[in-house]
Amino acid sequence: MRYELYYWPSIQGRGEFIRLALEDAGAEYVDVARRPRGVQAMMRLMASRALKTPPFAPPFLRAGELVIAQTALILHWLAPRLGLAPKSEAGRLWLHQQQLTISDWLVEVHDTHHPIGSGLYYEDQKSESLRRAADFRENRLRKFMDYFERLDRGRNITYVELSLFQMIEGLRYAFPQTMAALEPEYPGLIDLHERVAARPRLALYLRSKRRIAFNQQGIFRAYPELDA
Amino acid sequence: MRYELYYWPSIQGRGEFIRLALEDAGAEYVDVARRPRGVQAMMRLMASRALKTPPFAPPFLRAGELVIAQTALILHWLAPRLGLAPKSEAGRLWLHQQQLTISDWLVEVHDTHHPIGSGLYYEDQKSESLRRAADFRENRLRKFMDYFERLDRGRNITYVELSLFQMIEGLRYAFPQTMAALEPEYPGLIDLHERVAARPRLALYLRSKRRIAFNQQGIFRAYPELDA
Repeated sequence: MRYELYYWPSIQGRGEFIRLALEDAGAEYVDVARRPRGVQAMMRLMASRALKTPPFAPPFLRAGELVIAQTALILHWLAPRLGLAPKSEAGRLWLHQQQLTISDWLVEVHDTHHPIGSGLYYEDQKSESLRRAADFRENRLRKFMDYFERLDRGRNITYVELSLFQMIEGLRYAFPQTMAALEPEYPGLIDLHERVAARPRLALYLRSKRRIAFNQQGIFRAYPELDA
Repeated sequence: MRYELYYWPSIQGRGEFIRLALEDAGAEYVDVARRPRGVQAMMRLMASRALKTPPFAPPFLRAGELVIAQTALILHWLAPRLGLAPKSEAGRLWLHQQQLTISDWLVEVHDTHHPIGSGLYYEDQKSESLRRAADFRENRLRKFMDYFERLDRGRNITYVELSLFQMIEGLRYAFPQTMAALEPEYPGLIDLHERVAARPRLALYLRSKRRIAFNQQGIFRAYPELDA
């Protein structure tokens, strides 16, 4: 199966959680919007009245006849086919539950620099961002990290572990001082991050041009004033 | 099957989307935290190290051996068992995709009165709320309503339609002036709201004491200054 991923071409964003799964599995896929005229193709498909299951927003995935949106749902469907999730219902439900909690966490990261409106510039909501980011650093971040640290996940790597790698990676970019202070308390998550980064196909991907660098348009942004 | 729902006892909140499905189906369930010492039972279960699939937060559902969290996932699992979703994979995926978009919408409603921190009082983030709510009313609300209005959903009622009923109901409570102005543009959603409200078991539920009234602790709150 040749998968088509549709996502904004200049940021890691939500699409990166799906890219990591596809890359780790060595799956055949096209990152459609990164091709010439790809964004137009994505916008055309999203607006198409012929589509029976239209996405509200990118990312979405096309696999044959199926068009499916929402990051966590895409992974729920895709990962068993990539060998990155068990095929049993109970196992899949539990991974999906964790991934949905990661989605909630990611919204809170995004809102540290966009607490007022996603259509406004950061500069136009900077004072509100300072307050929201402080609350995130002091209260919310630890709550999520405590939760995922406490889970007993064994040595197995699924798409949830790939996503937790991405969270740690992004949080280090966005909140380097905060993370440096917190990390000693989270040996399980840090060990997990290292094990994922060392996976052969993923290590190659992370050094490739296919991996978009973190930048100031994505979900994880490095504004020093929002860090510790 | 006798289901156990765990959710905060004094608000509709996220738990209400699950209550609506259980009530519409006439399912046998216990709203655990609304019983004497129920909140303690909920907190104890959440913190239990014996639980293999611990929730990050309520709501969660217990069904025999299964403990499952995240509103949209609970509905995804539960609804086919209640006759409120098809059993085919494609049909279930499409409903789940829509429900996850409703979850995103609901977060944005919540953040109109809590743009800075969920642990702070509204009064301590009121000026930020005024800005966030204006952005929600002027940009975001219409984007979600346009999306759901445009979907061709036929006459069939699934858990997604019950959830859309609850969104309209809540938005009318929180933003009465805004909704009064918008509703004529959304005949499909308004018709859907009426059809759901008229379902016999649901109509009985909505008039019963089991239906918690909207109030100023829930996700939908009536602060006139945040309305038009």
